[in-house]
Amino acid sequence: MITEKDKQFIKHAIELSEKGMDSNAGGPFGAVVVKNGEIIAEGFNQVTSSNDPTAHAEVVAIRKACEKLNTFQLDGCIVYTSCEPCPMCLGAIYWARPTAVYYACTKEDAAEIGFDDHFIYEEIDKNIENRNIKFINLDREEGRKVFKKWEAKEGRIDY
Amino acid sequence: MITEKDKQFIKHAIELSEKGMDSNAGGPFGAVVVKNGEIIAEGFNQVTSSNDPTAHAEVVAIRKACEKLNTFQLDGCIVYTSCEPCPMCLGAIYWARPTAVYYACTKEDAAEIGFDDHFIYEEIDKNIENRNIKFINLDREEGRKVFKKWEAKEGRIDY
Repeated sequence: MITEKDKQFIKHAIELSEKGMDSNAGGPFGAVVVKNGEIIAEGFNQVTSSNDPTAHAEVVAIRKACEKLNTFQLDGCIVYTSCEPCPMCLGAIYWARPTAVYYACTKEDAAEIGFDDHFIYEEIDKNIENRNIKFINLDREEGRKVFKKWEAKEGRIDY
Repeated sequence: MITEKDKQFIKHAIELSEKGMDSNAGGPFGAVVVKNGEIIAEGFNQVTSSNDPTAHAEVVAIRKACEKLNTFQLDGCIVYTSCEPCPMCLGAIYWARPTAVYYACTKEDAAEIGFDDHFIYEEIDKNIENRNIKFINLDREEGRKVFKKWEAKEGRIDY
């Protein structure tokens, strides 16, 4: 059930995508985070202007929303984004755990105008040895010792 | 061909994973970015201490490396991480485009101590309608108008 509010928020995310592009902040992507029917944070892509490859609209908006709410979890929040999230942003969304995501363009639309979203989705599905960027496993047992210590850590904060 | 330097850098990433955990910055994960045989940036997980669900070790290290190099691309860089990247960090790596990634623990090791990496990898593979977080498509045609404008934009910076 799509409401008038949903339409308004996705429209705002699309407006942000245009605003970011027009101001040369980065690519044409915008996002907002909503809680209890109110926008609590918004963002647009700032990759090229801030020299930060992680500054996608969703990441920017999620980081701001968490800062505002003083938490690392977006319980009860909804993300509206002008485009289906890339794998990085999808991961960020899963770690932040909002209730739902509304998106306008698809990842195929993003690929059509030259963005790597689709390519990265394909790379994720490849066996780690066959990826375009070389992945090499090294010193696993040493790493696992720290993991064991985490398991036994008193008063640790899970996330 | 794994070199002594590689062993040294992965060891440092593992040390950072322990340092971050011991200082209650966040989960037991560390990463370094190396260029021309020198560490240019390092990071450990700071999710719970900074209220930022995107502050994974790799994201922290990539953001710092890009800031230092004054670019949004990690050409010729190598990432050493104490654990196989989660989908968010894998995406961040693909957007930053380093040459290679060395990792110690696997995503199965991370799942074993309670981290969602494996779950998120499974979610990515699901059809978008069947995901655990609800994804709803809305207003695609309006979003695509901005994409068309991007395609026609003069002097745009691709990334």
